[in-house]
Amino acid sequence: MDEIKISKAILETNNKKLIGSLDVDVAIAGAGPAGMCCGYYLAKKGKRVAIFERKLSVGGGMWGGGIMFNEIVVQEKAKAILDEFGVRARLYEKGYYMADSIEAVSTICSKTVRTGVKIFNLMSAEDVMIRKNKICGLVLNWTAVEMAKLHVDPITMSAKFVVDATGHAAEIAHLAERKSGLRLKTKTGKLVGEGSMWAEVAEDMIVKNSKEVAPGLYVCGMCANAVFGGPRMGPIFGGMLLSGKKVAEDLLKRL
Amino acid sequence: MDEIKISKAILETNNKKLIGSLDVDVAIAGAGPAGMCCGYYLAKKGKRVAIFERKLSVGGGMWGGGIMFNEIVVQEKAKAILDEFGVRARLYEKGYYMADSIEAVSTICSKTVRTGVKIFNLMSAEDVMIRKNKICGLVLNWTAVEMAKLHVDPITMSAKFVVDATGHAAEIAHLAERKSGLRLKTKTGKLVGEGSMWAEVAEDMIVKNSKEVAPGLYVCGMCANAVFGGPRMGPIFGGMLLSGKKVAEDLLKRL
Amino acid sequence: MDEIKISKAILETNNKKLIGSLDVDVAIAGAGPAGMCCGYYLAKKGKRVAIFERKLSVGGGMWGGGIMFNEIVVQEKAKAILDEFGVRARLYEKGYYMADSIEAVSTICSKTVRTGVKIFNLMSAEDVMIRKNKICGLVLNWTAVEMAKLHVDPITMSAKFVVDATGHAAEIAHLAERKSGLRLKTKTGKLVGEGSMWAEVAEDMIVKNSKEVAPGLYVCGMCANAVFGGPRMGPIFGGMLLSGKKVAEDLLKRL
Amino acid sequence: MDEIKISKAILETNNKKLIGSLDVDVAIAGAGPAGMCCGYYLAKKGKRVAIFERKLSVGGGMWGGGIMFNEIVVQEKAKAILDEFGVRARLYEKGYYMADSIEAVSTICSKTVRTGVKIFNLMSAEDVMIRKNKICGLVLNWTAVEMAKLHVDPITMSAKFVVDATGHAAEIAHLAERKSGLRLKTKTGKLVGEGSMWAEVAEDMIVKNSKEVAPGLYVCGMCANAVFGGPRMGPIFGGMLLSGKKVAEDLLKRL
Amino acid sequence: MDEIKISKAILETNNKKLIGSLDVDVAIAGAGPAGMCCGYYLAKKGKRVAIFERKLSVGGGMWGGGIMFNEIVVQEKAKAILDEFGVRARLYEKGYYMADSIEAVSTICSKTVRTGVKIFNLMSAEDVMIRKNKICGLVLNWTAVEMAKLHVDPITMSAKFVVDATGHAAEIAHLAERKSGLRLKTKTGKLVGEGSMWAEVAEDMIVKNSKEVAPGLYVCGMCANAVFGGPRMGPIFGGMLLSGKKVAEDLLKRL
Amino acid sequence: MDEIKISKAILETNNKKLIGSLDVDVAIAGAGPAGMCCGYYLAKKGKRVAIFERKLSVGGGMWGGGIMFNEIVVQEKAKAILDEFGVRARLYEKGYYMADSIEAVSTICSKTVRTGVKIFNLMSAEDVMIRKNKICGLVLNWTAVEMAKLHVDPITMSAKFVVDATGHAAEIAHLAERKSGLRLKTKTGKLVGEGSMWAEVAEDMIVKNSKEVAPGLYVCGMCANAVFGGPRMGPIFGGMLLSGKKVAEDLLKRL
Amino acid sequence: MDEIKISKAILETNNKKLIGSLDVDVAIAGAGPAGMCCGYYLAKKGKRVAIFERKLSVGGGMWGGGIMFNEIVVQEKAKAILDEFGVRARLYEKGYYMADSIEAVSTICSKTVRTGVKIFNLMSAEDVMIRKNKICGLVLNWTAVEMAKLHVDPITMSAKFVVDATGHAAEIAHLAERKSGLRLKTKTGKLVGEGSMWAEVAEDMIVKNSKEVAPGLYVCGMCANAVFGGPRMGPIFGGMLLSGKKVAEDLLKRL
Amino acid sequence: MDEIKISKAILETNNKKLIGSLDVDVAIAGAGPAGMCCGYYLAKKGKRVAIFERKLSVGGGMWGGGIMFNEIVVQEKAKAILDEFGVRARLYEKGYYMADSIEAVSTICSKTVRTGVKIFNLMSAEDVMIRKNKICGLVLNWTAVEMAKLHVDPITMSAKFVVDATGHAAEIAHLAERKSGLRLKTKTGKLVGEGSMWAEVAEDMIVKNSKEVAPGLYVCGMCANAVFGGPRMGPIFGGMLLSGKKVAEDLLKRL
Repeated sequence: MDEIKISKAILETNNKKLIGSLDVDVAIAGAGPAGMCCGYYLAKKGKRVAIFERKLSVGGGMWGGGIMFNEIVVQEKAKAILDEFGVRARLYEKGYYMADSIEAVSTICSKTVRTGVKIFNLMSAEDVMIRKNKICGLVLNWTAVEMAKLHVDPITMSAKFVVDATGHAAEIAHLAERKSGLRLKTKTGKLVGEGSMWAEVAEDMIVKNSKEVAPGLYVCGMCANAVFGGPRMGPIFGGMLLSGKKVAEDLLKRL
Repeated sequence: MDEIKISKAILETNNKKLIGSLDVDVAIAGAGPAGMCCGYYLAKKGKRVAIFERKLSVGGGMWGGGIMFNEIVVQEKAKAILDEFGVRARLYEKGYYMADSIEAVSTICSKTVRTGVKIFNLMSAEDVMIRKNKICGLVLNWTAVEMAKLHVDPITMSAKFVVDATGHAAEIAHLAERKSGLRLKTKTGKLVGEGSMWAEVAEDMIVKNSKEVAPGLYVCGMCANAVFGGPRMGPIFGGMLLSGKKVAEDLLKRL
Repeated sequence: MDEIKISKAILETNNKKLIGSLDVDVAIAGAGPAGMCCGYYLAKKGKRVAIFERKLSVGGGMWGGGIMFNEIVVQEKAKAILDEFGVRARLYEKGYYMADSIEAVSTICSKTVRTGVKIFNLMSAEDVMIRKNKICGLVLNWTAVEMAKLHVDPITMSAKFVVDATGHAAEIAHLAERKSGLRLKTKTGKLVGEGSMWAEVAEDMIVKNSKEVAPGLYVCGMCANAVFGGPRMGPIFGGMLLSGKKVAEDLLKRL
Repeated sequence: MDEIKISKAILETNNKKLIGSLDVDVAIAGAGPAGMCCGYYLAKKGKRVAIFERKLSVGGGMWGGGIMFNEIVVQEKAKAILDEFGVRARLYEKGYYMADSIEAVSTICSKTVRTGVKIFNLMSAEDVMIRKNKICGLVLNWTAVEMAKLHVDPITMSAKFVVDATGHAAEIAHLAERKSGLRLKTKTGKLVGEGSMWAEVAEDMIVKNSKEVAPGLYVCGMCANAVFGGPRMGPIFGGMLLSGKKVAEDLLKRL
Repeated sequence: MDEIKISKAILETNNKKLIGSLDVDVAIAGAGPAGMCCGYYLAKKGKRVAIFERKLSVGGGMWGGGIMFNEIVVQEKAKAILDEFGVRARLYEKGYYMADSIEAVSTICSKTVRTGVKIFNLMSAEDVMIRKNKICGLVLNWTAVEMAKLHVDPITMSAKFVVDATGHAAEIAHLAERKSGLRLKTKTGKLVGEGSMWAEVAEDMIVKNSKEVAPGLYVCGMCANAVFGGPRMGPIFGGMLLSGKKVAEDLLKRL
Repeated sequence: MDEIKISKAILETNNKKLIGSLDVDVAIAGAGPAGMCCGYYLAKKGKRVAIFERKLSVGGGMWGGGIMFNEIVVQEKAKAILDEFGVRARLYEKGYYMADSIEAVSTICSKTVRTGVKIFNLMSAEDVMIRKNKICGLVLNWTAVEMAKLHVDPITMSAKFVVDATGHAAEIAHLAERKSGLRLKTKTGKLVGEGSMWAEVAEDMIVKNSKEVAPGLYVCGMCANAVFGGPRMGPIFGGMLLSGKKVAEDLLKRL
Repeated sequence: MDEIKISKAILETNNKKLIGSLDVDVAIAGAGPAGMCCGYYLAKKGKRVAIFERKLSVGGGMWGGGIMFNEIVVQEKAKAILDEFGVRARLYEKGYYMADSIEAVSTICSKTVRTGVKIFNLMSAEDVMIRKNKICGLVLNWTAVEMAKLHVDPITMSAKFVVDATGHAAEIAHLAERKSGLRLKTKTGKLVGEGSMWAEVAEDMIVKNSKEVAPGLYVCGMCANAVFGGPRMGPIFGGMLLSGKKVAEDLLKRL
Repeated sequence: MDEIKISKAILETNNKKLIGSLDVDVAIAGAGPAGMCCGYYLAKKGKRVAIFERKLSVGGGMWGGGIMFNEIVVQEKAKAILDEFGVRARLYEKGYYMADSIEAVSTICSKTVRTGVKIFNLMSAEDVMIRKNKICGLVLNWTAVEMAKLHVDPITMSAKFVVDATGHAAEIAHLAERKSGLRLKTKTGKLVGEGSMWAEVAEDMIVKNSKEVAPGLYVCGMCANAVFGGPRMGPIFGGMLLSGKKVAEDLLKRL
């Protein structure tokens, strides 16, 4: 009977994929552009990477462009990353490239998965795992469990490093601050919070802020500015991609 | 000042893209796998195609695989379409291929957009345009307007043909039945509604049912079975892709 | 690392249990007293039985007794079933036994599971599987998917017989009527709906109505009266248990 | 085809209007009586003014008069402003004039727009733009995006001065305090919050408090008392109008 | 004490206004462009008119232009009405005029009220009054009572004629059909419902459909097409204004 | 220990009261003015009466007067009932008496209870009990159970006669029509539904319609017009009181 | 025409009542047992009293007895107050009297209103009026305005003294603390908050705590313990009544 | 008449059970695995125990296993407790036992109730009773009252000792900290809050933390770690059971 075979195929294949990702090199929370870009550069070098995404779909705020007009802007120095992924960028004015936001997010995702990153959607971290004062894993549950307000326990997965790429929410950094008792590597020891918009400065700082914020925990994308206190950006995505790449490069030195 | 240039770039570029899509060859409602596949084969032949997607992201139910286990099954005869898009399919058992659902949806979308299809997300049709008893356009609004329950008027776009690819909801066919006074080309003249699950039969019927349901209006994907009364399917997506391709081929003969 | 072993143990054990239940003798929808009682008597004779329960916990309305006063009444002829399960029944007056509702539901559940019935909670049927005009399986999804209004496909399981024990809702019978095109074996060919309360008559009719309502589909518990049109009952549970046992006995003759 | 021409006309005209307002002399948040009055006196002197209003309609709480009885009271010294706008005021008792609240709000709005102020409704500020410690623009998004809880990026517009006329909420002043790190020019350096009702005092203080609260940011209307700590008022609107006029006069000296 | 005088002034003035409107020549439900236009032309000829508007603000869907782009289109033959109200119309292309939607709605409202129409906002009709098979009044309540789901009785007002200008909802016509037992003067004797968008035809039909639908009850604006079955329109408002004027002219002959 | 004595006192006293009301002469659903008035005249003659009220407080819509202005009007012929209860009525104009709505509802309730009627608030009927085609009891549950959407069984109480005094909702008549299979004594055999407002006629008809609608089931108050099809009333309460008294008188002849 | 006369009668009568209560001796917020008892003893001595009650009905938590079992307990020393109001109290055990909670609340309300207290239901205070550091009035709005989240201004009324009888919420005391800048006469200068249940002590303290908490503002009922920090009580209502009486007696000395 | 006998039987039996539990040896809040285990070992030694459970069903988060896969893990040293209850445990790997989560929770509950523990579901504590600085009882209400947001007073019950077994929420400990003014026996005197997941450590600490936290108040289960600050656990339940047993043993020494 066909349906049963289909059911079995899915249960078996997915279970194998999930068990195979219970212990990886890098666990990334959030499949936005920064998280996927980070995962891509790690997988390209053969690292085992799992991304856990809270929503049904990946891409975060990239789909909507600016105020639902689905175009994004990318600056000169991130143009090369778009090229690497195969996203078409049109010159708007010197230093400013336009890309279709739907093309951008789908193409980045497609390349990331095909390079070997495992993305688990509809899952989110409700806690971190800590051993010897080092963050070494995520405590996961179905997002639907939280949305439906059910009382169900999570499971745990381990990783050599964890990357928080959950954007403004900085979910993992918040968990680390609130539950672990660890002092964050910020000027206050706590999350600083993100500042008012200043695209030019934000794009620079986001790359500088993309680093280790607690032993074993890196931040990238808007999460980096939310944690270390840089300004926010608008619908300009170059810094996001550069930030993801930067964390990947830092991690490759330690893996 | 940079931010203003970014704002202006997005407003201008998107406005040009939207005005450029007010009059196309084919307007497709719904950017699920069937709708995108249909758009892809049309654009590949140089047709002007616009897809309007209600949600922030494309892909419909494909992201979640079966019961949130993000793997899908595709049967033998649709394998070629996955190959065409560049989605990797692993043999599970003779006749059954597995694909990562996130890879599938992002790769199909990426290729579709890069082939020239314009996708407008966060927009949905609240009515159809009818002239001389033929459906020849969509009446569009922001989905956010409906979600926020605001009282705001829509705009209209025209197309030589309209394709309903909105899945179980069959949104455009419902509008046509309820508002146009047109008799649908089904056995009852009305929407028949979809039957209980029977993957094997459904996969065949969905292709047969992918056709014109009212002058100017085609249906594809699960919408086809919802309108003509075939059984529903589970997380097996071959019929979806074949259905989208079939409608594209039919339309190419008339364009 | 312990947590990972715990995660793996749960993923593996549950996956095996679920795959092992994709093809059973009897699939029961609803783990209320009637459904569990039916499952118990089937499993006692070695049949493979899976119960799918929409809620996090089993037991349905039995926990709350009458108007939240957690005591239930059982009449003389169902006393023997309580004894079989090990539920203590105190004589209130000739013909009327009282039981603590929490003791009743937990004890019936405990014995049912320990007799070999597999109960899958947080899962509900969104469709039935039909072949050759016979209902032969359920199309299942996580309840949380529906509660969170996510767009995710279901999976399918097959069974020689399906039992609808979903109480007043008569979920499976409704699906069968609405989606299968099958004529139900009621006086109208459709669901009749349940009548006003009349405990004495209801308790008799519920046993008579516990039978096959469409090829392959049996009903038991309050669902039987909802489908065939008997009166409803109050916090008196003898008929429920007798109904579940009756369907089990009927099915044992055909398995 | 007519509908398409209508769609195109609206897209083009509005896009030009919005792009033309990305860089203005004064950006006002909130189209209540104070904000519109301020905009009117600025536009009368030829300044370029854009008002961004969160709601579908302008006017804030003025429509409802007192406890939904749609009449308002205006004191002697604001009578001249009503006359300027063309709102009819009836003498109730020496020093107290009555006006129909619907006449008042619609007439003020009509005159304001016809004098050259651009009002953008359904848009709200989610951040401010800061350069060299001076507030010099607003970060805008559709209100519907926020209401529908969509994850979509904003755009930015610049202005020589920004006026917060968002009433009790003091939205822009809150953003400035929370995100900019700027010390407000109040006695505490922070928002003081509004005091209990005392119409007589409030009406005086609101004019005194209508001034610059941070470099580049002015407050007017109830926002002024909320920020600097004056008492609140009831359905008496003279102070509101005088406050808007006062800020306009102050700004005219600096533009 | 000032506040008490303000309270008293509002209570007295509004009470007098409301009691004065309990018996008028024409009661209009809905203060959208059609209802206000109708009221304006009646009041201009000295008729006593009261408009009851469900929302806090008047104007209905006119504020939002098309898809939140606040511009509207008006055709040639309605240009004179805009001129009469003092709304500036810019020529877009032969036969097509553009107006700022906020200017349009506020200016029409301002002129309407100043011409003598009483508008009561936050009130809606929950029933009609019928005597001798003629509709001769409205049964009113605060909208807030309905929104807060409070159980509070309405009051009644009488009018020589009632006009339904509630747009798509056709609230009064629905009440008349459902509660009065009167046969509507449509082809079916019931509400026909509005058809798909066709601006050109709709603009013509809306004027023809603006007439008496039951003894004492007229319809105008989109309500006219909803009741008699014409197509819907988009963000083009000429027909609305002409419709309101037409009903006013018809009523003037009977008053 | 005092608190325990208080708890015990309440549990014992209330349990005795509730058990004592499981079998009464007349059970009334709804403690609005009509239901309480009916109960009062029955209890005055020594009948055992229990009223079950869905809400926390009694009185229904009487508290709010007309549009939240808490005054009610009573006509001449019901003046005597107000006098009987001790509610002060002021002459407004010949034939029209005014009463404070709060005084009216509290005084009627106070007298009703002190005359011996038992009122159980927060309880509502979810079904009726039928024997030999006669309605002879109510199936009750806590309203909170329904509000909290809990799955808990009801209990049953019996009465020689049942009175539906649930107002517009006509809850018991609906249950009787939907669940009992009984033909109602109306012109259609079903609930007719209430007509448009016409106070004068409504006040007369409500008394005529206050009678037996099915064997054992009487209707009074607005419920009578909802069931038999009379017009609705506004904030005029004479008919309500006369209706309740009429049903009491009819029942006294049969008890 | 009758309906119009009814409407006019209600509008006129209520407006007169409300205007007549804009300036009273004592304004009480909250029509629970303590507030009504306080009002009763003041009105009995000829003082002008207005009570403003947030809900549609008066009585607060008294209707529900203990855990919805509608009986209350009253101790010996408050028995005389029940007698004064005419509420029947049955001896349960020495020192403990039982009363039907519905009889209690309706009878107290009836007597209170008939003694001359004006109760305005569906109105709540959103602010206090302060002059010369003394609370001398309430700022009122319809509760429905708040429930429907409408933006509508309040009106103001003045009183020689204000009594907060809003129970656990202590609404007026909170407003006084938060908005007036006044230091409360508690040990901390702020609201202390209520302690754990201890009926015996609570009943004593509630009377002691029933006093002036800020110039012009008295507290009574549970509000007194919430403000000064006494323990809470259960379904024992003697202290409530004694508290209301005590504040009335204190105020009578100053009026 | 049968239904009435059934109603009476339930009212009488439950009332006796509840009154009989108003004064017990140990009152436990929360019928999760720890609370039930604690109750079981106390009842086994003849102590009078009442458990109050907020939800309709017992068992807390145990039903859902890990991420809705209904299997749980138990370590070696808790295996004996499973054996005592009769729950089947399968060896997964040395030191790790698997149990079906539904079998576990129903079997533990069944045995607990049959050993003499009274469980009252749908009731929750909204306060504690304190005498002489010792917690000596719970203030209870129906959960439905809170869910339906009704204003209804609670009742009180007394116990020699109270156990908080409400899991992460630590409901009773929170009430004790917030309302009693008692200093908790933790390092900070307040609730510490639970740390990040570390199953191994958590399982040890939970037993150590299961002790008296304030005079008369014990904590067990996850509540113990939430109060004293240990790490959280995942779907491993040995510590829970050992914790419940430990508190029972400690209490037996003092009873």
